[in-house]
Amino acid sequence: MPPLDSIDHIAIPVEDVASAVDWYKSTFHCEVTYQDATWAFLKFGNIQLALVIPSQHPAHIAFTNPHAEKFGALKLHRDGTRSCYVTDPAGNSVEIMAAD
Amino acid sequence: MPPLDSIDHIAIPVEDVASAVDWYKSTFHCEVTYQDATWAFLKFGNIQLALVIPSQHPAHIAFTNPHAEKFGALKLHRDGTRSCYVTDPAGNSVEIMAAD
Repeated sequence: MPPLDSIDHIAIPVEDVASAVDWYKSTFHCEVTYQDATWAFLKFGNIQLALVIPSQHPAHIAFTNPHAEKFGALKLHRDGTRSCYVTDPAGNSVEIMAAD
Repeated sequence: MPPLDSIDHIAIPVEDVASAVDWYKSTFHCEVTYQDATWAFLKFGNIQLALVIPSQHPAHIAFTNPHAEKFGALKLHRDGTRSCYVTDPAGNSVEIMAAD
């Protein structure tokens, strides 16, 4: 059996990135790996959590998948990852990231 | 340095549990560990994903924390876990689970 797929990150909506980052940093043991006025990226032990202003970055869940290109044309991001977006039956935004 | 905290599971809203489970099962390599008409639990490589009818179970992110009891009185669940709920500054529902 191949290994189970992994979830790379979750992006949840916040109104103010700075205050949300402060709360998560003071509440949990995590590392802030990126932060600007529109979003931040926090590293946890098993996954990364993005805090996003929804008007700038959509809330979503990002899965790694060995056949990501089957879901659509992959867009190359500045950090070298490649992905596309789909929606689940309930309309939740789902990012499919290439596993490489 | 102590290890980074982990995220135990994420619960995202769906309108119909059965169709959502079908989509996630057919889209990703994951295992369905629980399913009824109001919610389902899917196991991924690094985390679990709950699909919930929001009127029955709130969407949330669940963190494990070695000092969960500091956040409030912990409620014992049928599966033996203990947790309480708080909200982040943006109003997102956050479950704090005891690490034991």
